Amino acid sequence: MTAEATSPLAAIPLAERAAALRAGTIDLHAQIEEALDRIARFDGRVRAFLPEPGRGERVHTEAEALAALHPDPRTRPPLYGVLVGVKDIFAVDGLPTRAGSAIPPEEWAMPQGSAISRLRAAGALILGKTVSTEFAYFDPGATANPHNPLHTPGGSSSGSGAAVACGYVPLALGTQTVGSVLRPAAFVGVTGYKGTYGRVATDGIVPYSPAVDHVGWFTTDVEGARLAAAALCANWRGEAVVSRVPVLGVPDGPYLGQAQPAALASFEATLARLAARGVVVRRVPIMDDIVAINARHRAVSTAEFGDTHASRFMRWGSMFRAASAALFDAAQRVTPPQRAEGLAGRAELRERLHAAMDREGVDAWASPAATGPAPLGLTSTGDPAMSLPWTHAGVPAISLPVGAVGGLPVGLQLAGRFGADEALLAAAQAIEARLRP
Amino acid sequence: MTAEATSPLAAIPLAERAAALRAGTIDLHAQIEEALDRIARFDGRVRAFLPEPGRGERVHTEAEALAALHPDPRTRPPLYGVLVGVKDIFAVDGLPTRAGSAIPPEEWAMPQGSAISRLRAAGALILGKTVSTEFAYFDPGATANPHNPLHTPGGSSSGSGAAVACGYVPLALGTQTVGSVLRPAAFVGVTGYKGTYGRVATDGIVPYSPAVDHVGWFTTDVEGARLAAAALCANWRGEAVVSRVPVLGVPDGPYLGQAQPAALASFEATLARLAARGVVVRRVPIMDDIVAINARHRAVSTAEFGDTHASRFMRWGSMFRAASAALFDAAQRVTPPQRAEGLAGRAELRERLHAAMDREGVDAWASPAATGPAPLGLTSTGDPAMSLPWTHAGVPAISLPVGAVGGLPVGLQLAGRFGADEALLAAAQAIEARLRP
Repeated sequence: MTAEATSPLAAIPLAERAAALRAGTIDLHAQIEEALDRIARFDGRVRAFLPEPGRGERVHTEAEALAALHPDPRTRPPLYGVLVGVKDIFAVDGLPTRAGSAIPPEEWAMPQGSAISRLRAAGALILGKTVSTEFAYFDPGATANPHNPLHTPGGSSSGSGAAVACGYVPLALGTQTVGSVLRPAAFVGVTGYKGTYGRVATDGIVPYSPAVDHVGWFTTDVEGARLAAAALCANWRGEAVVSRVPVLGVPDGPYLGQAQPAALASFEATLARLAARGVVVRRVPIMDDIVAINARHRAVSTAEFGDTHASRFMRWGSMFRAASAALFDAAQRVTPPQRAEGLAGRAELRERLHAAMDREGVDAWASPAATGPAPLGLTSTGDPAMSLPWTHAGVPAISLPVGAVGGLPVGLQLAGRFGADEALLAAAQAIEARLRP
Repeated sequence: MTAEATSPLAAIPLAERAAALRAGTIDLHAQIEEALDRIARFDGRVRAFLPEPGRGERVHTEAEALAALHPDPRTRPPLYGVLVGVKDIFAVDGLPTRAGSAIPPEEWAMPQGSAISRLRAAGALILGKTVSTEFAYFDPGATANPHNPLHTPGGSSSGSGAAVACGYVPLALGTQTVGSVLRPAAFVGVTGYKGTYGRVATDGIVPYSPAVDHVGWFTTDVEGARLAAAALCANWRGEAVVSRVPVLGVPDGPYLGQAQPAALASFEATLARLAARGVVVRRVPIMDDIVAINARHRAVSTAEFGDTHASRFMRWGSMFRAASAALFDAAQRVTPPQRAEGLAGRAELRERLHAAMDREGVDAWASPAATGPAPLGLTSTGDPAMSLPWTHAGVPAISLPVGAVGGLPVGLQLAGRFGADEALLAAAQAIEARLRP
């Protein structure tokens, strides 16, 4: 399937494609036809997009309306005509929300949220809903890894990552409560970004754990992630952040020890390549209490899952899937002190990370984006451990595709300072440039 | 939860309860109220029944109509007023079918099948639909084991087994394509029966693999299984089959070696108890090709799963769950010779078993009903290996609860001759009597 990424439109990175759409050198309707054709050819095996009767007609109609609204190429909005896949936990006007569940879609009826409205206002066209694990937790859908259909694409934003990897869309929305954007991005070999906690509004999204839910997105490259960030983030500071050659901090200690030896070897090789191109890499012992950090994050997210789904569970519990039901049960056993400690841990970890960055002159933390490449099998979505602390601290994080382990993609994860999404993306772009062959 | 089985109605075995309902000494409506009350108290944790708005009103109304139809206690049908749980892959007039899937219920619309119509004609009242794994395959629903909610209740007939174990109903319908009735019966400590292949019609049921799909049921005891068999089986021979003390054959060899040591030890202890009470136990080396038998059964059932769900997969594949999608993919790789060999293997195994029974004077084959007690966790439903060959051969089989391993129930599996359901049930009743303390 990967060989097909050489097909004309799918090979064009997001920012370049958006510019061509605005200029009219890529035709809106031809682009839609190509995307539908790719889905028809590949998605029977990959299963990234949810079925939508009449998809083509709907998207063409929306494209016509968009073109009529913006006849002048010079004033077209930044994402004019960009096709977007949306994880099926976002409410989108005109499309049902199922959240990977068999519960009737009416249960999830709510107004379309800010993230979708901002994308649409920026000119994006929603190509459709993508497969989510149930309630964005662990019970997987049918999506397969485009690089090997016997392996998981990761989760919970399974379909959005795969949709970008297959070239159906250059941008897809996901969410991350533990590692649900950066892990699948790494597993399918695309760029995955999650903003600073709270920087992208989470209204109109089926909640998992409001204290740690983040909106994120999958794109072709860092420039694409930045273009989407400009549309999605509150108070985007558009002035270019020129990054000097970034100083990377490697969070030494038991956190890194959670990764598999092959993934660590690949990570070290990546660091060596970057060092050879002038990137300063500093090893900073930190998070020696990763076991406690993990437990605190799990306490918060588990307890809040219990709250957000309580009334639904009372009515529809027997239609929950097994892992969701087990999580709901576990939520009842989280004690108030565990929960309070978990919530307090977020700010503590953030401050600790910032202090170390100040002390060591670190611009971004570098780590493997997952504990290894995508594991075999579709009944698990893999281990989110490598993403957890950055999600817990609420700092922005990005995964860049960096080669392969055992024939499957792996990602380099970079994490920045709380609120400094612009700076992290600038640093990531500098790193991405130095990773090119 | 088990302690609650001492509550008046739930403690009464099926046949005795049916007699009392016919005689009017148990009131139809009081019985319904007790069942609804048990569900309200326990099912939040066990999740055996699917939600049904207005369940109470519907069942009371159906009970009134039943009573009006049969005012004379002397002519009431055999299952008059018996509450039944139905695995949610059976079409039941008035209730949606979901088959454990998020696909819209309209996809499964079909006329109510013979099994349900026969039960209703025999006076049974459908209390509701019970949780099935997706498409009766492997992706589990939320049902927990009533003996320990951290353990699986087994599958695919997860909710039906648990519903009988919780005393909501004295009878529940399931299906078995590999081990989907006898394994969950063993895991939750109830009696589970599947008839001879073809003896109970499978119309009006979401198919998995028509060449090996069986209807089965969960009940309180062997007499209850017999009462249901009389209503469900074609050409039931009602005259009592008086079983002499049955001779049990133990299928020695690698088939038994699939069970865990603790389950085998418990099985041997059961055999010793039975031998002490006059049951002859003969060890008969057989099925030394169990690996090939397993492969042949998997070839048939996998290939047919691909056929039965092909058109649905084309339209809704991305809403399939992971194991179902993987099975559908695997179906495409089964070759026609593998499939033909699998189909032919059924009759060959059946004749081999019959010949050995003739030669050794065996009335029924005895084996552990599962490879061990219910495993920890709700994301797997356990291993169906111990049921597979009897399903493959299409012979009738029953699981009787026989104590516990590690605090969880285990079952003794007995398998008979093709078409001789009456004789197997008689033998099972003789064994059951000798298993009482």
